[in-house]
Formats: sequence, structure tokens, C-alpha cells
Amino acid sequence: MNAADLGLPVDVPSTALFTDQYELTMLQAALRGGTADRRSVFEVFTRRLPEGRRYGVLAGVGRVLDAVENFRFDPAVLEFLRERSIVDEPTLEWLSRYRFTGDVWGYPEGEVYFPGSPVLRVEGSFAECVLLETVILSILNHDSAIAAAASRMSAVAGGRGLIEMGARRTHELAAVAASRAAYVGGFDSTSDLAAGFRYGIPTVGTSAHAFTLLHDSEKDAFRAQVETLGRGTTLLVDTYDVAEAVRTAVEVAGPELGAVRIDSGDLLLVAHRVRAQLDELGARNTRIVVTSDLDEYAIASLAAAPVDAYGVGTQLVTGSGHPTCSMVYKLVARAASADPKAPLVPVAKKSLGGKASVGGRKWAARRTDAAGVAEAEVVGTGAVPADLADRQLLVRLVESGQVVGREPLEAARSRHIAARAGLPMSAVQLSRGEPVLPTEYA
Amino acid sequence: MNAADLGLPVDVPSTALFTDQYELTMLQAALRGGTADRRSVFEVFTRRLPEGRRYGVLAGVGRVLDAVENFRFDPAVLEFLRERSIVDEPTLEWLSRYRFTGDVWGYPEGEVYFPGSPVLRVEGSFAECVLLETVILSILNHDSAIAAAASRMSAVAGGRGLIEMGARRTHELAAVAASRAAYVGGFDSTSDLAAGFRYGIPTVGTSAHAFTLLHDSEKDAFRAQVETLGRGTTLLVDTYDVAEAVRTAVEVAGPELGAVRIDSGDLLLVAHRVRAQLDELGARNTRIVVTSDLDEYAIASLAAAPVDAYGVGTQLVTGSGHPTCSMVYKLVARAASADPKAPLVPVAKKSLGGKASVGGRKWAARRTDAAGVAEAEVVGTGAVPADLADRQLLVRLVESGQVVGREPLEAARSRHIAARAGLPMSAVQLSRGEPVLPTEYA
Repeated sequence: MNAADLGLPVDVPSTALFTDQYELTMLQAALRGGTADRRSVFEVFTRRLPEGRRYGVLAGVGRVLDAVENFRFDPAVLEFLRERSIVDEPTLEWLSRYRFTGDVWGYPEGEVYFPGSPVLRVEGSFAECVLLETVILSILNHDSAIAAAASRMSAVAGGRGLIEMGARRTHELAAVAASRAAYVGGFDSTSDLAAGFRYGIPTVGTSAHAFTLLHDSEKDAFRAQVETLGRGTTLLVDTYDVAEAVRTAVEVAGPELGAVRIDSGDLLLVAHRVRAQLDELGARNTRIVVTSDLDEYAIASLAAAPVDAYGVGTQLVTGSGHPTCSMVYKLVARAASADPKAPLVPVAKKSLGGKASVGGRKWAARRTDAAGVAEAEVVGTGAVPADLADRQLLVRLVESGQVVGREPLEAARSRHIAARAGLPMSAVQLSRGEPVLPTEYA
Repeated sequence: MNAADLGLPVDVPSTALFTDQYELTMLQAALRGGTADRRSVFEVFTRRLPEGRRYGVLAGVGRVLDAVENFRFDPAVLEFLRERSIVDEPTLEWLSRYRFTGDVWGYPEGEVYFPGSPVLRVEGSFAECVLLETVILSILNHDSAIAAAASRMSAVAGGRGLIEMGARRTHELAAVAASRAAYVGGFDSTSDLAAGFRYGIPTVGTSAHAFTLLHDSEKDAFRAQVETLGRGTTLLVDTYDVAEAVRTAVEVAGPELGAVRIDSGDLLLVAHRVRAQLDELGARNTRIVVTSDLDEYAIASLAAAPVDAYGVGTQLVTGSGHPTCSMVYKLVARAASADPKAPLVPVAKKSLGGKASVGGRKWAARRTDAAGVAEAEVVGTGAVPADLADRQLLVRLVESGQVVGREPLEAARSRHIAARAGLPMSAVQLSRGEPVLPTEYA
């Protein structure tokens, strides 16, 4: 089974139009002016984390690799660009042959990052690199925002189950990427079937209030559900009266009932009452799932409540107050001429209103203290100091146009958990604060 | 030229997997229990507007119609559902024949809405309607959030140009929908080529800082750009020193220079200085475009500045603080049996923590005062009062499974501007407040 065969848009035949028009007009001017072939280095980084956040979580790397691989200009796209007179004929001709042939290095997916971390580095001709700006930023800014929220939630969930269920609160395809990013950030499952289909993420779900309301009585609804989904199912118990629903649920399913779900009210109070009632009814193994407007703070506040799993929607897929990251894609070095042997010249925009960049092709390493805990994000140009050589963060993702950095999503998820565990303990405090690691420029 | 021919994911072959798993398990239980065919009415509404907002803007209706039309279960999807044991064989068999055959009514796209406005009503069997919940909410919650932000920005822009340029700050396909929603909300153009391709929205864009940095001097860069894009182009003047760049720009392009763009710094101050300098240099018709972290407040604060157009990114595509709406899709009435003539019974979840719903199939009308200004959103069940009969808001969108409500995007854009103009003047105040119209239940 293949998402592309199905035609489902989660596998994208071409990503070339996910591009701001100015990338193409710059290409045209560079082709005409003879600068298009200057060897160039672009880097992706943020100048700051969202206010109060202690670390960022890089997600979307795998999707970036798909996007780079699929970035090509089909006849219909070229025709559109021609009709609209967006670029001239020589540029269209150049685009029709476009394939990225350069190199991409980057932090591996799931890794944490800090202000100034060069999370992705794209090298090649100016022409081939500049075109990738928009789609790379779209992916990393969106996915990393979701992963950061997911990481905060998973850090405070204390090993209890975390279900991503925000599809209805975000764009239908952003939802698929959000499920993926949430999984990288530590979530266990998703309600979104497209995310299961495309990325193999475990999917869950049983019933909504509408199902109870469809029936003449709550008991009829529970019976219908248990009959076909089995006693292990999750029954939704807050359509009318919770205590009555719990009684009915155990009556219908027996003490083997899998779980009950509570989707409204004072979750702390209701969870305690429902647990006591379930235990009294002998349903000691019946789990409690809560799902009402949760965020990392609500999850933390339920730490002492008898809750077995959290379903999180809105606040997860909107990045818990920070729906995007501020990653930028900047030219940091370029050759002085189109000669492939011309040396690279570091370049940077002048500072004006805090938009300064640091020029030059960068490496990055995470320095640890004697106990092995991270103590600084070190970023530099030129040679890597010997003591940091084995702590470098960038890995090769694309080599001469060939994707070499693909990995299972599970690897990114494990990496994130390990990377977060390597940070100082204050990283997972929910309170606002400074980035937990300083960024040092070597 | 056709987006579907290209295979670009902005035209979706099937939307059936943009669905939460519980829609399918509810279907299975209803099929097994004999309730699947009960005639049902689902309605989409919000219980509240985002805090402080005066009105909502409905966007995404056209995309909902596409989604409903394309909602079908292909063999690969069915195989996925079978392999994962998500539903049983009779349910898979039912899904393989799925086509929506019911009716959809709704507020037309671009219309404003208020808490409780029944912006969409889906009628048919429980089985066929329940499946559409997730994708309908994804589309309306996302697109309406963007349109609401766009509307606030366009209300304060005073007729100056508004360019959507947020693609890099949101998921690459959410970006396309965001451009569309921004256009409905009053924006004029977009940087996103996919939005131009798919929806015909005018696209714009010329160059970024990278283009200047690629060259040995700013003058080289300007020359290369003007040579190929013409004197009417927009030159970016804040890479190094703004005053020097403006001087160079006019030197290179002459006073016919189309525009300069300022992307950093104190825009109010810099715009005044640049205007004075341009005028002094004789470039009186050269326009000024500003593009740095704008939102509706920044736009309003630049009302007195000599600015000709605003480019808005992050804050637009993230809904200016409210990246999603809280629309829900609720069963409000259903038949007492599968008999097609069985009367509809209003249903609603019991209130618990503010999640109450009003049962029954609803109409809505906007009452105006003697001067023709809207004074209330009236929502009711049963017969529409005679004095409101010609002020009804819901129109037919799908009739017996056939889409009948398709319209050009331009129509939605014009409708929004007219609808907003029909509200009390306080609607377009940026300050926080109550919804500008009360919702009355008749």
C-alpha cells in the first residue's frame, strides 16, 4: 500500500509551488546577471525561542527530505508561470530541468535546539538553494512548533498515555503533520486516520456524544457499542449524568470495561469520583481517559488525579500558544564568483531592529559538564575545537542531491526523549524562563 | 490547466482519511445496532468567539464542498482500515459504497457569524453525516480563523494594499488555504504561488536580502534586478543602510522605480524618512511597502505613515493570536427510528462545564434596525417569523448529495466586505469587547 498510489495528498508529487514568488524572480535576476551559479550556503536558525520557552524541538526533517526530493517543475506549473508572466522563458527553461544537486546537513529530527542553532544547512548554487527556502521553512516552522508543545506535555504526563486528537482544530493536512510532530515529541497515538495511513502512527478512537444522543437511551448506546467493539472499548460517560453513566457502563460491559472517557467538567474532581465509583463496582482495571481542553498546565495539574491517559487537541495542534517558530533561511556565505573553486565569503544583513545574522558556514556542538549534562550550545565557523569534535550536532541529510538521512519516525521520537533527558533539569519546568542552554559563539 | 491533472495536493482526490477514527467506530456500532439510518441533523456552530473579538468570519465553505464531494473510500484506504482492524467487514463494505446523499445548508462564505450562529447544517442518515465531522471542522476552524484576522487587518488598512506572505510560517498546505481565507477577508494578493495556481489569487514578489548579499555590492544587486524585472520592480532597501540604498535604488532605476520595501526597523520613522528622500530624489510615484512582523495593531499604527502597502506573514497565518476557531459539529436532532417518515427529535448534551448545546434544527436571520444596521443574530427552531423571512442567513449548498452552492472566490470576498459594512461601527474597533451583535434565541 502506498499513499502516492492512492493519490492522497499526504504524499506530494511536487512541492515546487509551495514557494514564494520572489524566490523565482530572484532566480531570474541571478540567471540574467550571471550570479546564479555562485556557490552558496544557506542556514536555518531562530533568533529566539518563543517567549518563556526553555528549548526548541526540531521536527519535520523527514518531511523536508521528501519536499527536496519532490521539488520539480511539471509542465502544468511551468505553464502557469508562463501565463502569469511570473518569470521569463530562460528561467522557465532552467526550472524545467530543476533537481536539487547540492548538500544538506542538519540537526537530526527530534533533537533540541536553541537560539542560533544552525538546525539546517543547505549548500549548492545560489539558484538551486534559494528556491527551497519557503517550503523548508513552512515544514520546520510548523512541525517544530507542534513538537515543542508535545514535548512539554509529554514531559509532565509522567508516562501516562497521550493521544493527539486535534485534527478538527487545524487545517486537514497540517493535522497529519501535527500528528507526526506530536509523535516525535512524545505522544503515543492519534485520532487522525490519515496520520496512521501515512506515517504508521497508532490510531485510536471509539465514540462521541452524538452516538449516545442518536439512541433512545444511554444504555442502548453503550450496549450497541460494547456489542460490536467489545468490552475493552472506551465508553463516553459525560453526555447526561456521569455517575449514572458509569453505573450503566459497568452494568453493560461488566468489570472488564476497557475505559471510560470524561470530556467536560472539573476533570480533577470528576476523575476522583469516577475512579472511586469504578473501584466500588469492581471495575478496578477500567482506565480513565480525560479529553477536555487540555494543555501542559492542565496535564500537570492532573498529576495526582487517577487518570490513565490524556487526549489533547486544540492546544497541541496550535503549539500551546506558539503556533509557529521563527526560523529563518539565510544566506550566510557565497562564492565571490561562479568559479566552483572560488572561496566562500561570509555575508550577513546589517543589524536593524534585531534582525542581525551571523555570517559564515557554521558547525554546532553541545558541550556537556563532568556529569554528562548539557551546559552550552556552541556554534562556530572554521575548524571545530578538538574537545567538541565528537559532540557535533549536524549530520549529513542530502549528499549531491541524494537523500541519505532518511530514518524511521521511531528514531526521531527516541532521539528526542534522549536529547531532552540530557538537558539540565530545569528544561522541563513549565514556568517561563530563559533558554536552558546558552548559545556560545566560538 | 487543472490542479488535479498536475497531481498537486491542493486538489484532493479523496478526503475520507481526514477523519478521526471514532467516526468510523461509531458508524460500525450504528450499523450493527440498527440506528445508522436514523435521519439526523448535525450543525456547526461556536459557543463563543475568541476572547475580545467582535465578530467571526466564515471561510472555507468552498473547500468544504470540495471535501464532501471527494469523500470516498478507495481500495487502498479500505485495505488500511482492514489491516489495522479499525472496523469490521460489513462496515468496510458500507464504506466502499459511500457517497454523501444528504443536504447541506449554511451561511455563505465570507458572511460574519456570532456565538450560536448555525453556520453549517448537514442532514441525512446518521451514518453518512457523522463521517464528515472531522474534515468539515478542520476546514472551517482553520480557514475562519485566518479570515477573521485578515478582516481585522483589512478593516484598518484603509484601502492600502495588503499582501499575504505567511507561507513560511505555517504548514505548506495550510498556507494555500490561508491565502484563500485571507483573500476572502479582504487581502489583495499573496506571495504563495500554489495559492495563485489553485485559486487564481494574484501573486506578487521580487527579492529578499539573500539576493543583495549574493552580489558584490548593493548596486550590483539592484542593477541585476532592474535589468530583468524592469523599473517598476520593488527594491528591498534595508540590507545595509536604508538611506544609501534608497539613493542607489533611484540612481539605478530612475524616478520610475516602482516601489521600495522596508523589512526591519522602526517602520513609522523609516517610512517617513524614505518618503521624504524619495520625493527629494524626484521619485514621487515610487511606492513604499512595509513587511516586518505586522499585525492589525501595527497596521493601524501606521495609518498616518506614508505607506502604500503592507505585507503580512506570521500574524495573519496564525490568526493573530487565535489560530483556530472553536467550531463544533453537533447532532441536534434525529429521527426516533430508521423509518424515513419518523419525526425528528431534538437532542442535546447536558450542560457540564459550559458545553451545553441547543437542540433542534435551526434557522438564523440577522435583524436590522430602521437604518439598516444589523442589531441581532436571531436563531430559532420551527417556523421563521414573517418579519425575518427575507433576512435568513442559511443557503442551500448541497442538495441530495449534489453540490449546488459553488461560487467564485470573488463572491465570498465581496460578501464579506458587505456583511462587515452592515455591522454596527464598533465591529471594526481593534480593542477587546463583546460580540458586536447579541445572539437571540427565538
